[in-house]
Amino acid sequence: MKYALISVSDKTNLIEFARELTSLDYKIISTGGTYKYLVENKIEAVMVESITGFPEILDGRVKTLHPLIYGGILSIRSNKSHSNQIKEHNIKSIDIVAIDLYPFLKTIQNDSSLHEDIVENIDIGGVSLLRAAAKNYKDVLTICDINDYMLVIEKLKSNQVDNRFKLTLSQKAFAHTSSYDSLINNYMLTKLDNNYMPEVLTISVLKKEELRYGENPHQKAYWYTDIFHKEISINNGTLLNGKQLSYNNILDANAAIGIVKDLNNYNCMVGIKHLNPCGVAIKGNVKDLWLKVLDSDSKSIFGGIVATNQVINKDVAKIMKDIFLEIIIAQDFDEDALELLSQKKNLRLVKLDFKTDNLKINKFEYHSVDQGLLIQNKDSYKHNIKDWKVVTKNKLSDLELEEAWFAYIIVKHVKSNGIALTKNYQTIGIGPGQMNRIGSAKIALEHAGKKADGSILSSDAFLPFNDVVELASRYNVKIIIQPGGSIKDKESIDLANKKGIAMIFTNIRHFKH
Amino acid sequence: MKYALISVSDKTNLIEFARELTSLDYKIISTGGTYKYLVENKIEAVMVESITGFPEILDGRVKTLHPLIYGGILSIRSNKSHSNQIKEHNIKSIDIVAIDLYPFLKTIQNDSSLHEDIVENIDIGGVSLLRAAAKNYKDVLTICDINDYMLVIEKLKSNQVDNRFKLTLSQKAFAHTSSYDSLINNYMLTKLDNNYMPEVLTISVLKKEELRYGENPHQKAYWYTDIFHKEISINNGTLLNGKQLSYNNILDANAAIGIVKDLNNYNCMVGIKHLNPCGVAIKGNVKDLWLKVLDSDSKSIFGGIVATNQVINKDVAKIMKDIFLEIIIAQDFDEDALELLSQKKNLRLVKLDFKTDNLKINKFEYHSVDQGLLIQNKDSYKHNIKDWKVVTKNKLSDLELEEAWFAYIIVKHVKSNGIALTKNYQTIGIGPGQMNRIGSAKIALEHAGKKADGSILSSDAFLPFNDVVELASRYNVKIIIQPGGSIKDKESIDLANKKGIAMIFTNIRHFKH
Repeated sequence: MKYALISVSDKTNLIEFARELTSLDYKIISTGGTYKYLVENKIEAVMVESITGFPEILDGRVKTLHPLIYGGILSIRSNKSHSNQIKEHNIKSIDIVAIDLYPFLKTIQNDSSLHEDIVENIDIGGVSLLRAAAKNYKDVLTICDINDYMLVIEKLKSNQVDNRFKLTLSQKAFAHTSSYDSLINNYMLTKLDNNYMPEVLTISVLKKEELRYGENPHQKAYWYTDIFHKEISINNGTLLNGKQLSYNNILDANAAIGIVKDLNNYNCMVGIKHLNPCGVAIKGNVKDLWLKVLDSDSKSIFGGIVATNQVINKDVAKIMKDIFLEIIIAQDFDEDALELLSQKKNLRLVKLDFKTDNLKINKFEYHSVDQGLLIQNKDSYKHNIKDWKVVTKNKLSDLELEEAWFAYIIVKHVKSNGIALTKNYQTIGIGPGQMNRIGSAKIALEHAGKKADGSILSSDAFLPFNDVVELASRYNVKIIIQPGGSIKDKESIDLANKKGIAMIFTNIRHFKH
Repeated sequence: MKYALISVSDKTNLIEFARELTSLDYKIISTGGTYKYLVENKIEAVMVESITGFPEILDGRVKTLHPLIYGGILSIRSNKSHSNQIKEHNIKSIDIVAIDLYPFLKTIQNDSSLHEDIVENIDIGGVSLLRAAAKNYKDVLTICDINDYMLVIEKLKSNQVDNRFKLTLSQKAFAHTSSYDSLINNYMLTKLDNNYMPEVLTISVLKKEELRYGENPHQKAYWYTDIFHKEISINNGTLLNGKQLSYNNILDANAAIGIVKDLNNYNCMVGIKHLNPCGVAIKGNVKDLWLKVLDSDSKSIFGGIVATNQVINKDVAKIMKDIFLEIIIAQDFDEDALELLSQKKNLRLVKLDFKTDNLKINKFEYHSVDQGLLIQNKDSYKHNIKDWKVVTKNKLSDLELEEAWFAYIIVKHVKSNGIALTKNYQTIGIGPGQMNRIGSAKIALEHAGKKADGSILSSDAFLPFNDVVELASRYNVKIIIQPGGSIKDKESIDLANKKGIAMIFTNIRHFKH
C-alpha cells in the first residue's frame, strides 16, 4: 500500500487531488480538519492519530511529530537496514507529502492581528514534514503549493516522475521554508531594536515578472517583490497602456518616483533619463509642470520617463503626446487624457497612488558587489532649514531658502559627483556622474547658459576648490548650497563674498552612485 | 525539575555550559554523541530514548521527532489546558534547547563531498527543535550558536532573562533556519536547469563587517558576504595597511576589480573615481601601467582607487606615493614597496589574488528598488571579434581590432550614457553618465583634446544621430566602435565614410547604471 500524507488549510483543488490519488492506489493519511473534509466528501482517509497511537495535543501544536510518521518519510527505500527497521517498527512508507503552512504572511499583513495570533501562526509541524520529505526527495514527492497537485498527478499517471522533477519539488520546498522563516525572522526583528542587524541576513522576495531582458538584451532578468514592506513604488503601479515595463524602465521609474516622494508636499513632476533627473518642477498645475520639465532639457527628455503626483488631464495630454516618452507615471489619468495618450500603443501609462499611507517602508537598500551585498539605510534624511548655515555675508529670505531647499533635494537624486541648477522651482541644468566636481558644474552651467542668471547651484558634496564658485560667478549664479567641510572652504567663501554669491552649508552630504 | 535539551556536533564550550546548567538545577536531555561526551566528562545526562521510549532509527535520521519531546517544548506554561495535557502524558517541560545543525555549508564547500553526503547533511530534527523552541520563546530559550552558551548562563544567573532577550534568541534561530534552508535551496538550484528561477527567492548573506557609515555619514551600513559563491572580489582581499574600507571604497573597489577581471589576460591597471574608470591601461610593466593611468586623467585620480593584477614594486611605489589615493589593490606588494607605501598611514593597501581559480561565480546581480528587487545576469558577455562588422569602407588590421576591443571593454564599465576614448592601450578620455549621448562624447573628447588624434571612440549603446561622428571627426578620431541598431545608422556610416573614420558594429549593447 502507498501512503500520501495531506494536511492543508486551503482546501482548493483538494477533492480532485485526493480522488486521483485514491484511484492511483494511494491511501491518504490526514490531520483533523483535512481528514474531516475528505471524509465528508466521501474520500477514504486515515487519521494521523491512528498511525501514531498518540492524540493531537496542545491545541494542535503537536500532531504529526512522531517517529512512526517521520520514519515513513525519511527511510531510504533502497537501504536494506532502513527497510528492516521500517518493518520492525511497523512503519508505513509515506511517498507523498502535501502541506500548506499556516498563513504567517497573511496574519502579519492583517492589521488586526495580535502578536499572539502571529506567533500561533508559526507552523512547526508542517515545516518539519516538508523538510523531511524534501530531504528524502528521491523517495518522496513534496508538495508545498496547492497549484502543483495536478502536475504531480499527471506525472504519476504518465510515469514521468524523474529525478529532475523530484528535485524541483524538493528545491521548491526548501525555497518555501527558507522564505517562511525569513518572514518570521523579519517580523521578530520589527519587535526588537531598530539597530539590530543579524549575523545571518536572509532577504526573501516573491517573483512578480520575468522581464524581457535586463539592462541589455543579452542579460536575463526578473522582477521580484519585497513581501514584507509596502511603499509608494512602481511595484504598486497599474499599467493602463503599453507593453510590459523593461528592466531599465523599472530602474528609471524607481528613480522618478523617489524624487516625487521627496517633493510630495508640492505639485510635482519629474523627467528621468538613465536614472538621472533631466527636468524637475514643483508648484503650478499639471500643464505648468510639464512645460517646465520640457523646458529644463527638451533634448534629454526624448525617450525618457515622467512621473507626477498630479492627474494627467486632456489639456496636458495634448501637448505631452507630441514628445516621445517611454512611460508616464501619474496619480491618475482623466478619461479624455487616457484615450488620447492610449493612441500611442507603445507609450506605457502607469497609474500610481502617491497619496497612499499605511506604509511599511524598508529602511534598507541593497547593493550587490561580487561575492557580497552592501546594505545601508536609505538616504531619507529630512532637512531642517534651521540647521543650515549661511556662511557668506548675505542674508537670505525664506523664499530663497525654500528655493535652495528645492535645489538641494534635486542634487540628492543626481548621480555623484552631482551638480544641479534650479530657478523658479524648476531645474535648468544637471551635471551628473563626473569623476571631478568642476566637470559636473561645467555640464550643468553650460546646459543652463543664460538661464543660469539668478539661479541656485547645489552640490551633493563639498567643493574641494574654489573653481566651482569662480565658474558659477561667470554665469551670475545667486546662491550656492553645499554640505561644506573642505579644508579649502575659506577660499570658496571668500570668493563667493567677493562675487556677491550667497553660500549655504548644510553639513549633510548626499552621495549617490 | 527543569530540563535542557542539548544536541551538538561541535563540542566546544560544551562542558562548561553543561556544568553551569547542572549547577542551576537543569537536567540535561541529550542524543547519542552529545550524551556520550557528557557522561565521559562526568556530567549527568538523560538519553532522548529514555524520554521517548523509542529508539533512534534510520542512522539517526529520526531521533527526537516525538510528541514527548515536542510537547515538552511547545506547551504554553501559563495555559491550564496545556499544563493538564503535559501532566496527563507525563511530559517533561524543556526550558532550554541548544542545537547546532549538521554542517551543510561546510559540506558543500568541501570539494570532495558527494551529493549523497550533502543531502545527508540536511538537518531535519535539529531544525525542527530550534523552530519549536523559537516559536515558544516566552517559555523556552533557544540557542543555535555555541557562542551564546555563556551569555545565557550569565543572564540566568543574574535573573536577566527578559522578553527582549528571549525574543532575540528566537529571532536569531529563525534567521539561522532561514539561512540554512536558503543554502539548501541554492544548492538544489545548482542541480537543476540554469534557467530555473523559483517563485520565492531567498538570498542569504553573512555579516562581514559593520561599516563606519554608508554612502553618506548619516546612513548606517553593513558589508555582508555571499556564503554560496567564490569570486575574485574585494571580499577576498587582505588589508595590509590603512583603516577599514568604507562603503564607497567597496563600491569603487568592486568596479575597479571588475575591469581588471575583464582584462585579466593582460598586465592591467585601473583607476576609479565614483565607480567610473578615470584611467585604464594594459600591456607593459607595472610602472608603465601606472604612468599611463596617471596620464589618462591626472586630476580625477586624486582621491581615487587603483587596482592591478601586477605586483607593486619599489620602482612604481616611489612614484605612486606622491599621489593621494584611497586604496591600491594589487596582486601583491614587494617588501620594499609595502614599507614605502605603508608610511602613508591612511593609504589602504589590499592584496588580492587575481590569478585564483576554482571559482563559483554568482551569475546574478541584484539591484534594489523600492518594495522590490531586480535580478539580472551579470553582463559577462564575451566578445568575439569575428562577430563584429566593419560597416565603413576601411579595412582594419588585427592590431586595430584588438585596440577597438580594448576600447569597447572599457566603455562597458562606464556609467550610461558612456563614451570612452582610448589610444595605445590606454584611456585618454571618459564621458560617463549623461542623459544624452553627445554630452558624453563631448566630455570625453574635450578631456582628450589633441591626444584624441588617431584614437578609438567607443559607445556603450548605438549612436542615435550622426552628431557624435561629426564631433569625433573634428578631433581626428580613427575608429568608432558601437553596437549599431539606430534607425539613423546610415547617416552615421555615411558621415564616417566621408570623414575617413572606420566604424565597427558589435550588435551588443552595454548599458550600465
